[in-house]
Amino acid sequence: MLTLHDSPRSLNCYKVRLLLALLGVAHRRVFVDLRKGDHRAPAFLALNPFGQIPVLVADGLVLRDSQAILVWLARTHGGTAASAGGDDRWMPRAPDDEAVVNAWLAAAAFELRLGPYDARLKKLAPALCVNAAAVVENSARALALYEQRLRDRDWVALAHPTVADVAAFPALAHAGEGDIDLAPYPAIRAWLDRMRKLPGWVALDG
Amino acid sequence: MLTLHDSPRSLNCYKVRLLLALLGVAHRRVFVDLRKGDHRAPAFLALNPFGQIPVLVADGLVLRDSQAILVWLARTHGGTAASAGGDDRWMPRAPDDEAVVNAWLAAAAFELRLGPYDARLKKLAPALCVNAAAVVENSARALALYEQRLRDRDWVALAHPTVADVAAFPALAHAGEGDIDLAPYPAIRAWLDRMRKLPGWVALDG
Repeated sequence: MLTLHDSPRSLNCYKVRLLLALLGVAHRRVFVDLRKGDHRAPAFLALNPFGQIPVLVADGLVLRDSQAILVWLARTHGGTAASAGGDDRWMPRAPDDEAVVNAWLAAAAFELRLGPYDARLKKLAPALCVNAAAVVENSARALALYEQRLRDRDWVALAHPTVADVAAFPALAHAGEGDIDLAPYPAIRAWLDRMRKLPGWVALDG
Repeated sequence: MLTLHDSPRSLNCYKVRLLLALLGVAHRRVFVDLRKGDHRAPAFLALNPFGQIPVLVADGLVLRDSQAILVWLARTHGGTAASAGGDDRWMPRAPDDEAVVNAWLAAAAFELRLGPYDARLKKLAPALCVNAAAVVENSARALALYEQRLRDRDWVALAHPTVADVAAFPALAHAGEGDIDLAPYPAIRAWLDRMRKLPGWVALDG
């Protein structure tokens, strides 16, 4: 049984919950209360010295970093989803395709993080924001890159959904909570709708 | 033949050059002059809309993001290095080991980037710095995590060198250029020495 240490409103945790749902993987959840400082408690730091959620524990294996967890889940549980159409569909093994997915995972972890992800944090948890003064400018830049990418394709990395779509969805779907308006980005909005129609898709908690 | 679009003083480019050297992979280099704005020219943006270096071109395949390039190189050229001891040694295929490497690749791209990488940029190219005001605090945090990790092990992710070591080396080896002092971090300094002794290791240009 997988155990996910997470928080209902964390978008990095939502990335993992979304893939767990899309793959139909059973798991239990342990609530890490960031407001109470659970992530800085010795017991949690022993699990993850970075003091970050999500953490996924699987038979004694302790995994940190949301993108690394997505890849691990796709590798180990990707074949269980009837919708996946192949056991490496969510994270390809072919190096050329894998490199495209990895480059877009990096964009989710950096460009989206500094943009719409942090724009939302600036309002909800400003202490976690990387650079609050730059979120509007960073968001415009990140959204333009995703808009350009999605203008003539259905999915972020490949011709079908991958972990790169899952990693990007939370920050883009919740950009409005950081006052980032998606009206100028029709291709992103159409892709968000496609994501919400994937079998097993779940919304952010709460 | 591989073509690397890079700049001699860029640490993200150095990550790729270091792995190319460790693997003994022939390649040619194309200089992208950031000071002249080459990375914002239409021809370069057609190659990489993110306007970032490095970019690796291999038989028409165009790869961006230094970490994604490291993984691709390890997958496709890792077996050519006599020193590698196995064709997936630099980037393991086993999902559990792969997840550990991926988590430390993420640390190089985020924690080290916001810390010693940006501390150096603050002096050399402040416009590229994510949050100049926080580089000292971020560096202390990132260095403490690497110091803790390396205190009882020789390599960052696994029992042997991987792309996670290659990704971390440039920012840690050049922390001094951002006035980040490594004296309080003996485990990092010992690891830097081990890295410099790897067969094929090369220094940053210039």
